[in-house]
Amino acid sequence: MDWGSDLWDQHDVIERHTQSGLDLLERYVKFVKERAEIEQNYAKQLRNLCKKYSRRGVKEDQDTKMTNQQAFQDVLNQLNDSAAQREHLSESMTLNICVELSRNLLELRQERKNHLCDVKKAQQNLESSFKQLETSKKRFEKEWREAEKANQQTERVQQDANATKADVDKAKQHAHIRVHLADECKNDYASQLQKHNKEQNNFYHSEIPSVYKKLQEMEERRIRLLADGYVHFSETEKNVLPNINKCLDAISSTGRNINEKQDTMALVEQYKSGAVPPAEVEFEDYSVGSITCKQKTVSKYHSFLHIRNKYIIPFRKYNLHLNFAMKTYLTVIYMSMTGRTYLMVYALNNGP
Amino acid sequence: MDWGSDLWDQHDVIERHTQSGLDLLERYVKFVKERAEIEQNYAKQLRNLCKKYSRRGVKEDQDTKMTNQQAFQDVLNQLNDSAAQREHLSESMTLNICVELSRNLLELRQERKNHLCDVKKAQQNLESSFKQLETSKKRFEKEWREAEKANQQTERVQQDANATKADVDKAKQHAHIRVHLADECKNDYASQLQKHNKEQNNFYHSEIPSVYKKLQEMEERRIRLLADGYVHFSETEKNVLPNINKCLDAISSTGRNINEKQDTMALVEQYKSGAVPPAEVEFEDYSVGSITCKQKTVSKYHSFLHIRNKYIIPFRKYNLHLNFAMKTYLTVIYMSMTGRTYLMVYALNNGP
Repeated sequence: MDWGSDLWDQHDVIERHTQSGLDLLERYVKFVKERAEIEQNYAKQLRNLCKKYSRRGVKEDQDTKMTNQQAFQDVLNQLNDSAAQREHLSESMTLNICVELSRNLLELRQERKNHLCDVKKAQQNLESSFKQLETSKKRFEKEWREAEKANQQTERVQQDANATKADVDKAKQHAHIRVHLADECKNDYASQLQKHNKEQNNFYHSEIPSVYKKLQEMEERRIRLLADGYVHFSETEKNVLPNINKCLDAISSTGRNINEKQDTMALVEQYKSGAVPPAEVEFEDYSVGSITCKQKTVSKYHSFLHIRNKYIIPFRKYNLHLNFAMKTYLTVIYMSMTGRTYLMVYALNNGP
Repeated sequence: MDWGSDLWDQHDVIERHTQSGLDLLERYVKFVKERAEIEQNYAKQLRNLCKKYSRRGVKEDQDTKMTNQQAFQDVLNQLNDSAAQREHLSESMTLNICVELSRNLLELRQERKNHLCDVKKAQQNLESSFKQLETSKKRFEKEWREAEKANQQTERVQQDANATKADVDKAKQHAHIRVHLADECKNDYASQLQKHNKEQNNFYHSEIPSVYKKLQEMEERRIRLLADGYVHFSETEKNVLPNINKCLDAISSTGRNINEKQDTMALVEQYKSGAVPPAEVEFEDYSVGSITCKQKTVSKYHSFLHIRNKYIIPFRKYNLHLNFAMKTYLTVIYMSMTGRTYLMVYALNNGP
């Protein structure tokens, strides 16, 4: 059972069906192309998102030592990698399905066209052979009537009392020629008929079945290509999923590795001044005449303020770490200048 | 080692650091929100693609029996299911991360505000206590000078030869009152100093460490929330991947189950007319007077054309299956009308 032997009389069906099959293949290629575009667009949006939220510039660098801050960047990096996988998916779909099937589609379209052209040519040959047969048959019919007429004329001349022997001979000769001519036409008709039947037999039992069988094989190849296209469509995505899964695993690990205690301790390590809270305020007993002592303290505080304004504040603007070092250094200087640390601490925390 | 004991003098650092931590949390919520939108958009595009390529209407139904045609619809259905998974992912991200963290963020912001407010209040209290101490110290200083002056005056009056006993007594009494007043101020100053030192001690060793420790705990909670947010971000996607993988498996199976032989055979089953190719054209021997026979054949063909135009062509437009049945039926009628099938087949395949 095949198209050649069972659909020999279903030319339109085969023509329409193979066309619709190729249209489906083309439709599928377009579908995959659009899917690849969606994937590309999705990847682009993910990349833009990562770019938007990535840390840039020096300003924000101060806190990057914290695991939870760094982790966000890691999440973004992994998402960016996952977007790259999506781009790869899009490119693979375009290359392995769209480009490949488009090429096959072109070849199949040409192949179908050639097969249908062969059918048309064979049909035209058969039609022209049939026309020749009809012409030959008509000529035989016409010639035979002429021959019959000539025979009847001969009979009439033979029965005519007034007819001469020459008339009879002439009629007989004419009839003989016509019968001979009719016989020749009959032979020609018989030969044309034989030729036509041979061609008709060839057409229905060889040419048509052969072409339709080729179209069936072509259709099977087309179906196989399409079926493989469906498999590639899913396998391409299945191939990138483990990589995306790896990115997701990395994000999970990043989240799980964040140590909140370590992060708050990092702040201590970064900013601990080492200073101790101010000592108790001392009693200034004016009743034993300590006025000069107080004036000395105040003037020491003023000279500390001078150092602080000159060195600490510009440094604070420049670099917090250096500032910290300088602050510690100046704290020591000042602590050596006066035992009273309260004013210093107050000034450091509430400075201009 | 904690913020309370080691960063007691780093108010600005703690204030800035906790602010930057909450800003990061907010930034992360926004990031996930945008990611969820991208996912929603991606799912929508996939759904639209499926809708666009899905078969609609009756016109195209004729070929849906073919596995490769039906398979395309299956591919679209599976892709649609996979889009539904993407939508689910988007919704889970919004619900489990954005909504949850936004709520926590609000609470943390309020908590931080309250803690910083407590620090400010304690600072203001200490400052006001220090001002009271200064006032009290100045009053003691002033009163003691007055007392010294009064004592000096008493001495001067006692050494003055012109002074009466009443003058001396008056001066002594005045000096006594001033010294008493100065003593009272000294006691008040001492008491204020004791109170202030107690408050200062409380400020640096209890209030500040306690609040900064609470801020550290809050910061640790914030970091834990953010870290869990990173884990949820990846786990949510990891949860939908197996379902997407199932959709892809289904697509692969669909592709692999396509049977190209079965599909081309289905066309044979659907359209096989059962007709045999036309028999050989017979020889019409006019030499034995078969003219009337030919005319009869032609008239039979004309009556077949009449039946064909009246029944077959309208049916072909209405339904191909019915048409097939009718065509087979009419083929049998015509075959019973004349042994010559060639003209019939020719007419069926090349009809108007």
